[in-house]
Amino acid sequence: MSAPKKVVLAYSGGLDTSIILKWLQTEYGCEVVTFTADLGQGEELDPARKKAELLGIKPENIYIEDIREEFVRDFVFPMFRANALYEGLYLLGTSIARPLISKRLVEIAEETGADAVAHGATGKGNDQVRFELAAYALNPEIKVIAPWRIWDLTSRTKLIDFAEQNQIPIAKDKRGEAPFSVDANLLHTSSEGKVLEDPAEMAPDYVYQRTTHPEDAPNEAEFIEVGFEKGDAVSINGETLSPAALLTKLNELGGKHGIGRLDLVEGRFVGMKSRGIYETPGGTILLQAHRGIEQITLDRGAAHLKDELMPRYAELIYNGFWYSPEREMLQAAIDRSQEHVTGTVRLKLYKGSVNVVGRWSDHSLYSEAHVTFEEDAGAYDQKDAAGFIQLNALRLKLLAARDRRLKR
Amino acid sequence: MSAPKKVVLAYSGGLDTSIILKWLQTEYGCEVVTFTADLGQGEELDPARKKAELLGIKPENIYIEDIREEFVRDFVFPMFRANALYEGLYLLGTSIARPLISKRLVEIAEETGADAVAHGATGKGNDQVRFELAAYALNPEIKVIAPWRIWDLTSRTKLIDFAEQNQIPIAKDKRGEAPFSVDANLLHTSSEGKVLEDPAEMAPDYVYQRTTHPEDAPNEAEFIEVGFEKGDAVSINGETLSPAALLTKLNELGGKHGIGRLDLVEGRFVGMKSRGIYETPGGTILLQAHRGIEQITLDRGAAHLKDELMPRYAELIYNGFWYSPEREMLQAAIDRSQEHVTGTVRLKLYKGSVNVVGRWSDHSLYSEAHVTFEEDAGAYDQKDAAGFIQLNALRLKLLAARDRRLKR
Amino acid sequence: MSAPKKVVLAYSGGLDTSIILKWLQTEYGCEVVTFTADLGQGEELDPARKKAELLGIKPENIYIEDIREEFVRDFVFPMFRANALYEGLYLLGTSIARPLISKRLVEIAEETGADAVAHGATGKGNDQVRFELAAYALNPEIKVIAPWRIWDLTSRTKLIDFAEQNQIPIAKDKRGEAPFSVDANLLHTSSEGKVLEDPAEMAPDYVYQRTTHPEDAPNEAEFIEVGFEKGDAVSINGETLSPAALLTKLNELGGKHGIGRLDLVEGRFVGMKSRGIYETPGGTILLQAHRGIEQITLDRGAAHLKDELMPRYAELIYNGFWYSPEREMLQAAIDRSQEHVTGTVRLKLYKGSVNVVGRWSDHSLYSEAHVTFEEDAGAYDQKDAAGFIQLNALRLKLLAARDRRLKR
Amino acid sequence: MSAPKKVVLAYSGGLDTSIILKWLQTEYGCEVVTFTADLGQGEELDPARKKAELLGIKPENIYIEDIREEFVRDFVFPMFRANALYEGLYLLGTSIARPLISKRLVEIAEETGADAVAHGATGKGNDQVRFELAAYALNPEIKVIAPWRIWDLTSRTKLIDFAEQNQIPIAKDKRGEAPFSVDANLLHTSSEGKVLEDPAEMAPDYVYQRTTHPEDAPNEAEFIEVGFEKGDAVSINGETLSPAALLTKLNELGGKHGIGRLDLVEGRFVGMKSRGIYETPGGTILLQAHRGIEQITLDRGAAHLKDELMPRYAELIYNGFWYSPEREMLQAAIDRSQEHVTGTVRLKLYKGSVNVVGRWSDHSLYSEAHVTFEEDAGAYDQKDAAGFIQLNALRLKLLAARDRRLKR
Repeated sequence: MSAPKKVVLAYSGGLDTSIILKWLQTEYGCEVVTFTADLGQGEELDPARKKAELLGIKPENIYIEDIREEFVRDFVFPMFRANALYEGLYLLGTSIARPLISKRLVEIAEETGADAVAHGATGKGNDQVRFELAAYALNPEIKVIAPWRIWDLTSRTKLIDFAEQNQIPIAKDKRGEAPFSVDANLLHTSSEGKVLEDPAEMAPDYVYQRTTHPEDAPNEAEFIEVGFEKGDAVSINGETLSPAALLTKLNELGGKHGIGRLDLVEGRFVGMKSRGIYETPGGTILLQAHRGIEQITLDRGAAHLKDELMPRYAELIYNGFWYSPEREMLQAAIDRSQEHVTGTVRLKLYKGSVNVVGRWSDHSLYSEAHVTFEEDAGAYDQKDAAGFIQLNALRLKLLAARDRRLKR
Repeated sequence: MSAPKKVVLAYSGGLDTSIILKWLQTEYGCEVVTFTADLGQGEELDPARKKAELLGIKPENIYIEDIREEFVRDFVFPMFRANALYEGLYLLGTSIARPLISKRLVEIAEETGADAVAHGATGKGNDQVRFELAAYALNPEIKVIAPWRIWDLTSRTKLIDFAEQNQIPIAKDKRGEAPFSVDANLLHTSSEGKVLEDPAEMAPDYVYQRTTHPEDAPNEAEFIEVGFEKGDAVSINGETLSPAALLTKLNELGGKHGIGRLDLVEGRFVGMKSRGIYETPGGTILLQAHRGIEQITLDRGAAHLKDELMPRYAELIYNGFWYSPEREMLQAAIDRSQEHVTGTVRLKLYKGSVNVVGRWSDHSLYSEAHVTFEEDAGAYDQKDAAGFIQLNALRLKLLAARDRRLKR
Repeated sequence: MSAPKKVVLAYSGGLDTSIILKWLQTEYGCEVVTFTADLGQGEELDPARKKAELLGIKPENIYIEDIREEFVRDFVFPMFRANALYEGLYLLGTSIARPLISKRLVEIAEETGADAVAHGATGKGNDQVRFELAAYALNPEIKVIAPWRIWDLTSRTKLIDFAEQNQIPIAKDKRGEAPFSVDANLLHTSSEGKVLEDPAEMAPDYVYQRTTHPEDAPNEAEFIEVGFEKGDAVSINGETLSPAALLTKLNELGGKHGIGRLDLVEGRFVGMKSRGIYETPGGTILLQAHRGIEQITLDRGAAHLKDELMPRYAELIYNGFWYSPEREMLQAAIDRSQEHVTGTVRLKLYKGSVNVVGRWSDHSLYSEAHVTFEEDAGAYDQKDAAGFIQLNALRLKLLAARDRRLKR
Repeated sequence: MSAPKKVVLAYSGGLDTSIILKWLQTEYGCEVVTFTADLGQGEELDPARKKAELLGIKPENIYIEDIREEFVRDFVFPMFRANALYEGLYLLGTSIARPLISKRLVEIAEETGADAVAHGATGKGNDQVRFELAAYALNPEIKVIAPWRIWDLTSRTKLIDFAEQNQIPIAKDKRGEAPFSVDANLLHTSSEGKVLEDPAEMAPDYVYQRTTHPEDAPNEAEFIEVGFEKGDAVSINGETLSPAALLTKLNELGGKHGIGRLDLVEGRFVGMKSRGIYETPGGTILLQAHRGIEQITLDRGAAHLKDELMPRYAELIYNGFWYSPEREMLQAAIDRSQEHVTGTVRLKLYKGSVNVVGRWSDHSLYSEAHVTFEEDAGAYDQKDAAGFIQLNALRLKLLAARDRRLKR
């Protein structure tokens, strides 16, 4: 790969990406464009602008954007239509943010005439894969620079030295190493590494940043109603909300009640297992609510097919294949199923758990006439079940008859 | 179907199956053999013997058996190896008991020279299918009699009349109709019908029979350790227990902490949707624990394949195809994966929720050397990731290049 | 089911459906509407009109339609986009025609105010299921009458007697029983029953009606080019053709060269196995051609997902679930993949076999620059493969290391 | 990677692997062990021994083995139980041989105290991945050397120069470049590269090495009978044969009749598409025969599950994951299904095509009594079909009723 001339950097304003910024300038002598996105990570963006300016970035090369609505509408919600869970438990909070960041990096590269993009993910994790697969899928000629895989700043000491040599301001609490590594956005906060590296050891309380300790959550349950239209949540307790506003509200509710904590050891795409602590308060409620409304509005055939496709779909997102034909095929199938997933779900939030306790819809397929234990006025002829069973049993009988025949 | 000469009846000793018993005698003039099983439903079996005698069943025709160990060992545990959930949520507590009951019915029929078996499931539910598919798969020539699909005792009044005319004792509280219908065994209690038929309405508190109200559960979390060997739970807090004893103990723990309640609308195999309230205290803990131990002992490729196969496997059990070649094929695949699923999981039980907080094993695949944020002493070469990404990206680049070429 | 007042009958004009027509009139005293479709079965439709008139059907109640274009465009082609094969071999020629016939039956019922439809499929086959599931899916209140499951005309003699008593003309060659049963449409001809019932016995030559004996086919191979657009065939040897015209032409070519014969024992949805002889000359060419064009235009990820979904998709069509949400979900996924399946395939037809021998497309993903054994000018860096392999191997190494550790 | 001390080389005796041998000696100064296997590629092995000796390999370091029986018994046959086809068409002839070669390389390394293995696959293909994944899965500490990814002998001229400088004898016809690249074993011959690189161009006749041109094949069809036991072929025309002898015989038959040619563009695991010409005469017959015997002996549920799992299974083998837990899980499922796949298939071989024309078995599930168009003596009650259809239709009716309700 020839040296880049102009690089768009995913820039948080923190120490690590500031070091990357400076390293790109010094290593390649290239122009740097910074992209700082508000994905709901809960940090102010203004300091990032100031720091970028301080590091010599031209004002027209500083991109700061609030992309929370796009994030929830075009990434989080489509994923929740699938009830996606990676390895049965993980709501993919980090995975789903990466393709959007890469999309904006590539778009800004095209706007600014940059020939490369850069990210601050390490060479051990999944995020490098997600950033880069997305970038290449959107622009096959873009260069992607992953400094952590290239440079020789392989220890905290070397990083701090480089920062000091390059006049990069270092917050006091960043001199030492953080006790664990954090990623956050509107969907979740993940924590991993360091104190969390022994999967036998319980995560310390201070790791949790976004959810109340269940023991400290309110002693009274709270009941909420989530409204859906065509598979997407659109309202809470009757109030219509934009996608990002809705998820923000669910996060408040979930966080308050200690909902959405997960201690997981997962299989990374790059091959090893890692342990993470995830907090997904709103997403955990949303998954239950979506399943709740599907229970009455989605046909069994569609629901079962969705369940069978889901692990593959989740794996694709986890592995970084959001912009792949097969993810898009699965999305087309999933979206096709959501036309009538409209209605309202009532949920109980209480000390770490969320449960559906009621659901109703004009689009309901639930037929009390058919299922009732009472007289059903001819809606269902129980005698039909005899033929249904006989023909379902026929091949099993033929198998059993063969076994008996051969044993004789 | 010609009239049966001798019928083995799945007999609970309750009013309904007593009516069936008498009806079989009067309708067909046939000899009846009763089979009453202790599956952990929490009822004494002695009354069933007395009632059967009272109804004229010969002592040698009364079979009363404790099959709890077989139930857990050969049915529940194999199913939990798969992490089976029907429609994402249901632990299949009723479904998994039916094939075992049918197996014993068929075996007793063969021992006693009976040509038929009978069950008390209605013509609207899944249980009739499960009983009958299992019976036919085990004996292709057996007759199966499902009185609810045949007789004209179509109202409570007619049933009570029939009972009175036939000197069947009627407990006072059975004269009226129960407010809902219950099925129970060592794995779960399910409640459905009547007061539960409107899926919008929250289930009344009195429906729950086996789990403490989370609000009334202890205010302090309890931590337990579940030990596994080759995919099956074998110990709690270091004490080795038989399968049934272990599940009993987990039920106590889960019940005490209000764990395992589920309010579900599900798609029945016979075509309509129904609403059930399920309580699976021990099973809910067991599922989390099993996933916890798999997290460190099961390879990613195996784990993902299991997750993809699971919905089909769960559907087969739900639909009554336990004794089918395809369930056995899936079981073979699943069991093949469990050889190293051995180790210990630590869980937190608290007011309705259960979470893994630690896991360890001699069989662990987790490698701190590979995953660490610290210096890894060469265990992993971050530069490998570049090639990994490039080749995974190649087809995406070729796709993107085509799109660009065609747009020009 | 109450007696129907007005019935739309799928009417071929042959003896069997004429008997059904009369039987409906006499059994129910109802008005009959006949629907006779040209699906490319190769029979003239005029005699059907005359015969219907003869049997007392009012002219406005006689529907005769050429639906070949709709059949190929909306049913056959969507199915071929999936490369659908049932049980690995069967091109679903009968299965795919049934939902279209039912659709028209239901539509005509609605136009004519009929409350029922009727078909001439027996109670042992799949066709009854396909007709009826489609009808119910399109009109949940329609009655479906399947005389073969109801009446007592259970032998050839009784049928002939009924015909004679009711002045139904009987062609001489129809007095005895046909040596086998035939279904035909533009996609295929199937033969089953009678002389074909022993799957060990080779089908007699006279069974084949639509394809030249390979031994009698031309001694010289013929090469043809099939053009595709977005997954559908649109031209042969450069000549653009309508869907039905194209399939007709492929049938001529395939038939001439003895292509598309299949001797199959298949598993019916109703439970037993049956043996059929299928002739699908054009479809067999079309499948190879479609796979050929996909080879260069379809991404590997999309292609593999399609291959994994295909058996389920084929099973749904075979079982009669064309109008089901899950078939539509799969179709949405499949169609999503076909956007660039555009180009030309060259095939060799010779004495029973068809093989792709070349393919080209502006939409090709094949990159000679990447794959060449020659110098590739930097298109591909072979060193990337090392990292690719290392990370794919990592989990396998961790597994192997565990095995070694435990064996010590 | 530190330099290897002793390397086991997969050695064919040809020019390329001789150059590798010498290069290993000169590059690393290491001891080389050669492993030359008879996998049925149709070359004598003695010259390989002589050439190895000539190049200075010690006699005890020269391993020459006939592993044809192991190849067919433990690799080819298990794969054929799955009816494996990659991308719908490719019988995986090259893919399936690689894990066996790696297994022997690793075993010999352990026997001889070697710390590395080496292979002659290039950095662009799938074979490098297959060799190396297998090696690492069997010995996580082995070094794998792939000279084509490392050295600078990047043109034919440089290779020939190296050979001349190192006294490696060069056959006259090897001085120039071969017009295409060939891999062969008992299952197939593949040809790719050079003259085959344009997928639009028909492969020249001289590419085919193992199958008669269909036009030149006998003018009379030949009928053969293949016997199976538990899923594996065991006899031809009544003669019991060992696995390798059986496949050899099928190759003769298929080759004679021009069977098993395939012109394919496939998606490689490393990301690009490539075009290959495959000849798999015996395997093509075997696949049809195996499907033929499964048609009567394998239950529909098992057969359909197998078909759904097959593409994944084939992909795993193609990608080099033979020694992976997920391939072993799938194998366990597949093998579980083959217990009764025993019986005989009759096939017609004629000018390039192979078709099943009859099959019979004591294990047959085909029941003429059930399927017959004749009177079935009560084996099947056609009225059962009504209930079967009604309950299968119920959810479709509920869907249709919803659509109608909402449209009002």
